[in-house]
Amino acid sequence: MFENRLRSLRSKFGGFEVDTVWIIQPENRRYLSGFRASDGQLTESSGSLFISLDQALLLTDSRYTTQAEHEAPGFEVITHKQGAVNALSEIFDRLHSRRLGFEAGYLIWEVYQKAQEKASQHSPPVELIPLSSMVEDMREIKEPQEVETLSRSAQLISDVLAKLIEELSPGQVEKDMAWRIETLIRQHGADGPAFPPIVASGPNSALPHAVPTSKRLEKGEPVILDVGAIVDGYCSDMTRTVFLGEPTEDLKEIYRIVREAQLTAIELVRPDMETTEADSLAREIIKKAGFGNFFGHSLGHGIGLATHESPAVGPLKPKVLQEGMVFTIEPGIYLPGKGGVRLEQMVTLEHRRARVLTGNENFYSF
Amino acid sequence: MFENRLRSLRSKFGGFEVDTVWIIQPENRRYLSGFRASDGQLTESSGSLFISLDQALLLTDSRYTTQAEHEAPGFEVITHKQGAVNALSEIFDRLHSRRLGFEAGYLIWEVYQKAQEKASQHSPPVELIPLSSMVEDMREIKEPQEVETLSRSAQLISDVLAKLIEELSPGQVEKDMAWRIETLIRQHGADGPAFPPIVASGPNSALPHAVPTSKRLEKGEPVILDVGAIVDGYCSDMTRTVFLGEPTEDLKEIYRIVREAQLTAIELVRPDMETTEADSLAREIIKKAGFGNFFGHSLGHGIGLATHESPAVGPLKPKVLQEGMVFTIEPGIYLPGKGGVRLEQMVTLEHRRARVLTGNENFYSF
Repeated sequence: MFENRLRSLRSKFGGFEVDTVWIIQPENRRYLSGFRASDGQLTESSGSLFISLDQALLLTDSRYTTQAEHEAPGFEVITHKQGAVNALSEIFDRLHSRRLGFEAGYLIWEVYQKAQEKASQHSPPVELIPLSSMVEDMREIKEPQEVETLSRSAQLISDVLAKLIEELSPGQVEKDMAWRIETLIRQHGADGPAFPPIVASGPNSALPHAVPTSKRLEKGEPVILDVGAIVDGYCSDMTRTVFLGEPTEDLKEIYRIVREAQLTAIELVRPDMETTEADSLAREIIKKAGFGNFFGHSLGHGIGLATHESPAVGPLKPKVLQEGMVFTIEPGIYLPGKGGVRLEQMVTLEHRRARVLTGNENFYSF
Repeated sequence: MFENRLRSLRSKFGGFEVDTVWIIQPENRRYLSGFRASDGQLTESSGSLFISLDQALLLTDSRYTTQAEHEAPGFEVITHKQGAVNALSEIFDRLHSRRLGFEAGYLIWEVYQKAQEKASQHSPPVELIPLSSMVEDMREIKEPQEVETLSRSAQLISDVLAKLIEELSPGQVEKDMAWRIETLIRQHGADGPAFPPIVASGPNSALPHAVPTSKRLEKGEPVILDVGAIVDGYCSDMTRTVFLGEPTEDLKEIYRIVREAQLTAIELVRPDMETTEADSLAREIIKKAGFGNFFGHSLGHGIGLATHESPAVGPLKPKVLQEGMVFTIEPGIYLPGKGGVRLEQMVTLEHRRARVLTGNENFYSF
């Protein structure tokens, strides 16, 4: 698996005009090598990969040497003592690098400056070449085994959400429910939550990125539950909006519209369609119903080793959808002060159409 | 509080030769404004601050507008629709910026390039000035209220760890114990864990950054418990090494040495001492005992809104310790294949010496 990925990466070297690539982004690192370490903080790297046409090195520090050797057997592990940048010269020598590609969308400015200095002082000098989305583009199309793992992750979170919804009742506190979801995610055997669960009730449900509060759930209010798990490294992401008791007519109306928009997008999305067109399948329905201004986010996003990854499925930046992609379809309508409805499924494109990976339970038909 | 911090920040503008600063690092953002949103991923910003001598703007997108207005009343909230970089021109006009300081240790290369382009095309053109540690340096010295919150965070995690140690017995699984710690942290009322708990037993305890595995705890083995909580935004971090039953003599020996190194550093560390000297207080004891090669990390690190923040207390990069700093003292000895011992306390410097913020329980005197 990793050999195939490296082969595919190396086949792009010519197009990008590089002879070596430097990979620091944690999911890209894991995707290419199997090394699972996360970075404690954004500025605390647990390692980086240096890949040339005939060598593959994993540079890390002594905290991670054993783990790296175990998890990334296809890579030669090198342990630095004085920071990654100070090991660059040795790396350039070993790989005979002259043109080093770096992740332009991830490398920090200050690290770039230091690396640039080392590279220009090296003999022979090494040129730094910014790479945009080189590995991210590879990760867009999932291998069958990845789709299978994503499907398990989606099934697990569907089970968790179904269980949670069974337990839900008025009087419960948003924060407690969020914690209950995290507990269920662990009990179901996931590595952990993919992101902090969202439990947003009543007016809070009108905030697309609500953080769970100490507010209690009340009868008839919408409760948005947006949850995800990590299973063998792969993320899931799904949303249901539930009502504890009979909702008002206007909430029923927006629910019907959001669900219709979602079902339409799932039914009609196709490989070779542009992401912007997929987005508009749902958006047009919401617009025609008069709620276009209350659907402020994209229809969905790619999902895999990261919860949010390429391709974005929104009204901007068209990209062509392809077989093997896995992404979310999550239209929403948010009425400030009143409440919101969002419904999110994970789908994969196969046999020329979308297959839903998350469960089909817990939708209303008002 | 925030007014004082802004005043202090602005007093540095002259020295850095800037008229505006752009703050994107989440803890710096929170420190200066009160805005608590976290960034889902490094490449997903929930907002940034633009501060000039007479104005303070918080630029965010519609997902966070309400939250930003609520949490950062001292800032004027501006909602962008097309990404932060595309709003720069408007910001420059409003603030009459000519020299914009940015966080060189946090801004991503690609974002810098785009911002640089906008800045140079602006009329009048704006120059981008890299800032190193401008806000990080301010955060090093804690205000009395911050010390109080850190003390509560330290007390909470001490209580959690004491409870966990009571419950510990051979046969339990590392991963389950890690989850139990997360549960206890929530039950004690924290915002959440400061980092994923480390539970490392037997040979795993020889890996300073061990991830909990499905290994069971065995009698006589060392178990390293390294845990932290977040209370009102402030992190705690503490470590105990416990033995379930009688350890071997060599483990007792390294325990005694690590504890002596820790107590010596706590006793002798002073304001005006360099961090490298503080590190050597403990390191010399471990070296003299013949285990210098088995203590591969720094003695400690500053702690506050982030678990790891300035100052680093290690053998490199000297910095002068000052009253009001809060940092960890965590010597360790790791014998590959056999096991390790690490002991970690949080201290603050006040009245010319160190006061321990974490509990004094659960140490052995062999």
